[in-house]
Amino acid sequence: MRVLGVDPGLTRCGLAVVDSGSGPGRVAMVAVGVVRTTSARTTGDRLAYLQDELDVWLDRFDPDVISLERLYVADHVPTVMTTAMVSGLVHLAAARSGLEVHEYTPTEVKASVTGTGRADKAQVTSMVTRVLGLDQAPRPADAADALAVGVCHAWRGVGAHRRAAAAASERARLAAAGAAR
Amino acid sequence: MRVLGVDPGLTRCGLAVVDSGSGPGRVAMVAVGVVRTTSARTTGDRLAYLQDELDVWLDRFDPDVISLERLYVADHVPTVMTTAMVSGLVHLAAARSGLEVHEYTPTEVKASVTGTGRADKAQVTSMVTRVLGLDQAPRPADAADALAVGVCHAWRGVGAHRRAAAAASERARLAAAGAAR
Repeated sequence: MRVLGVDPGLTRCGLAVVDSGSGPGRVAMVAVGVVRTTSARTTGDRLAYLQDELDVWLDRFDPDVISLERLYVADHVPTVMTTAMVSGLVHLAAARSGLEVHEYTPTEVKASVTGTGRADKAQVTSMVTRVLGLDQAPRPADAADALAVGVCHAWRGVGAHRRAAAAASERARLAAAGAAR
Repeated sequence: MRVLGVDPGLTRCGLAVVDSGSGPGRVAMVAVGVVRTTSARTTGDRLAYLQDELDVWLDRFDPDVISLERLYVADHVPTVMTTAMVSGLVHLAAARSGLEVHEYTPTEVKASVTGTGRADKAQVTSMVTRVLGLDQAPRPADAADALAVGVCHAWRGVGAHRRAAAAASERARLAAAGAAR
């Protein structure tokens, strides 16, 4: 399974592609980058540029699913509106490409990657680097966050696959027991 | 000048086209409507439908400018994120079409149309109906709000034109005075 992880933002938008499936819980980085736009341009121009970049990534890497960091209004940062606009573009691009979007809160992402929802940025970057077996820590933080939300979904997927496999195994056991009875 | 007024929202998005210019402060309604999407569909599908409708309106009515009601995060309603996403689509459509977007807060719109920023929905609807010389009050409120934000910009434009005309007249007077000196 190939996941496009997105840490949305209008000034810096982290994009990352990770592959899972080479083994239980194994994930590998395919690509990572940060799309930047300047506040010297109009909001519309910035969104158009970001939409074009999103399309390029979807075309080039052909992911199976998108994993998006969810922003809470309660964060109440000045960028909340523009970040929501970028999240909207991600949902839109997914719909146009027939992809599902899965959203994870920052706490869920941190808990998935580091084991605690209260992890700081350094811990997240450190764990992403180790989990993906990277030579260097990804920079800037938006790149590490995009990788983290990608890994978060890849691991959820692995978990679901394991649960499905366990359920199938259990059904087979019950069927065998029924046949033997 | 033809203005596309937008009252953004994912469940109901008000769209209105108003023309100004037939006389000082005169505005006329060209079209009004509300695009609705259901929460039974994904956010991406709803945004895609809305984007298609926006494109239809831009193609059909060919406005000169877009007037958009600005949402404050301080409103803190559950719909703030999706409303921001729809606002992003409006900015995006404008950029793709080479149009400017002017944003007005609800208070600015109310003050422009009714004379007070504390007007209620009934007052806004009543004034929009009178100003545009409509036989019936526009329904639902999202339609009236889209007309109101359209009228708000049309009147700002008229004001700017008047100021420009006054400035030009003043320059001509000074030039004439200079020539006579």
